[in-house]
Amino acid sequence: MTGGDRRDLDGFAVDLGGTKLAAARIARGIVVERLQAPTDGAARPETQVAAIGGLLDRLGHDPGAHLGVAVAGRIDDAGRWHAVNSGTLRTIAGFPLAEALRRDVGPATCLNDASAAALAEARFGAGRDSASFAYLTVSTGIGGGLVVGGRLLESANGLAGHVGFVSSRRAEGLCGSGRTATVEAVAGGRAIAAAALRDGHPAADARAVFDAASAGADWAERIVARSAEAVALLIGDLTTILGLDTVAIGGSIGLAPGYLDRLASALAREPTLFRPRIAAAELGHDAPLIGALAAHLDRSIR
Amino acid sequence: MTGGDRRDLDGFAVDLGGTKLAAARIARGIVVERLQAPTDGAARPETQVAAIGGLLDRLGHDPGAHLGVAVAGRIDDAGRWHAVNSGTLRTIAGFPLAEALRRDVGPATCLNDASAAALAEARFGAGRDSASFAYLTVSTGIGGGLVVGGRLLESANGLAGHVGFVSSRRAEGLCGSGRTATVEAVAGGRAIAAAALRDGHPAADARAVFDAASAGADWAERIVARSAEAVALLIGDLTTILGLDTVAIGGSIGLAPGYLDRLASALAREPTLFRPRIAAAELGHDAPLIGALAAHLDRSIR
Repeated sequence: MTGGDRRDLDGFAVDLGGTKLAAARIARGIVVERLQAPTDGAARPETQVAAIGGLLDRLGHDPGAHLGVAVAGRIDDAGRWHAVNSGTLRTIAGFPLAEALRRDVGPATCLNDASAAALAEARFGAGRDSASFAYLTVSTGIGGGLVVGGRLLESANGLAGHVGFVSSRRAEGLCGSGRTATVEAVAGGRAIAAAALRDGHPAADARAVFDAASAGADWAERIVARSAEAVALLIGDLTTILGLDTVAIGGSIGLAPGYLDRLASALAREPTLFRPRIAAAELGHDAPLIGALAAHLDRSIR
Repeated sequence: MTGGDRRDLDGFAVDLGGTKLAAARIARGIVVERLQAPTDGAARPETQVAAIGGLLDRLGHDPGAHLGVAVAGRIDDAGRWHAVNSGTLRTIAGFPLAEALRRDVGPATCLNDASAAALAEARFGAGRDSASFAYLTVSTGIGGGLVVGGRLLESANGLAGHVGFVSSRRAEGLCGSGRTATVEAVAGGRAIAAAALRDGHPAADARAVFDAASAGADWAERIVARSAEAVALLIGDLTTILGLDTVAIGGSIGLAPGYLDRLASALAREPTLFRPRIAAAELGHDAPLIGALAAHLDRSIR
């Protein structure tokens, strides 16, 4: 979908993940200045808010400026922040993020990071020609966002879009979400490393498994293929549910060499109707920042 | 969600399935007259349009009246009608239904029958207090519709909402949609009868399997339990994707004695966040008719 003019985006944005915090000043839709700091997934949320305030100060943010904040986890309609995968953000359980930001930093719109990225890709990236669009990030975990008919699909509990926790015929075992046999439990970086460990390769992280697969190691090839097959099946299922025409793939694993090709061959087994166009995400690590500010401006205009 | 006033619904509606055709006159939101005729799933679409015209004539329809038409299968945004499960409507492949109706009967809004029922339940039935709602019909096949933030989720190809074709960890084998191991391939009435046949009970249709399960037959109990488990898993997955707060269940199997209880116990295995409220659909066989007319009036007002 096209929607809004990217050049109308002026303000600030924050992207808070399990391992790093990014803050940016955005002018006419471009990230013109970006600061990053490491975060501690086990830190108290008050500490994270203080870190956000610190970076925004350095960027010249004032409390009257537009501000969008993308976070790992879900944000409910009261602006409270909850971990969905308890393995990622251990101390986040209903923290009033929007309220704390309003008090200490300035008014902000908060939303899930992959949802924010989906909105940005839908408007200004790989989904710009799509009417029914999903963005999937395949990284340590699997995140996503859905933009249908120009609107980001949201729910009062902030869960909408958490497609990594959909169950999968390719998966087994418990997931950090509490569900069983999810896509994230077989396809994400944590799952890939865990599979390598089970296969007798305890030192292999996801990157090492990809390198071994590229070098022709059968055990690694099997693990990577299973990840791509699970994500392809998820894409087929989301397409069944929403009639998707385009799916954009991001994330360190999703954009790793060869992964999109693997996805495409796995998807080729689906009937045409259930097979959307697959594209690489275009906006890289700017996507959650751009999308968070766009979501804030949408809400301010309403 | 609440939306619109049911008493504003005045006009006509049609519900065309694989085995029967219903046409109704609706006044102030109530089906005041209803006619039915058997249909032949193998008949040419022109024959179906003529049958629709015949019933509407008897109801006093004139070409200027509001008319909504719900059909099994998908309707694309050009008003063309396509079978999704080739086992249900064998001859329907891109027939210009909206155009044929406009020419022979009068202008009409056409949409999938379960989507129409979902819209009706969302506005006037089991979903009236829901912001993120799904309707599932468990019958010969499995159909559905999704209403999020007051809007029926639709797609240009008309596929959105066909949740019976989502893949399932509980299923195996090919589905009439061309996909593999779908919910419909394990949970619908056709699948239940096929499972009974495989278990050495060739004469048992879905109703007979339910009767045998109620009478305590282990083989039948297993088949019914697997159906409910697959539908519960689908509900958990749809809730993950859309943050559903309410799911309404309809259909001859969905509303069979004990089925909702089985669903509820299977769902109890999901973490709270992934477990919506489950309710019986309230509008029965009027739902697709009411919903089709509501969809037509929405479109006329736009």
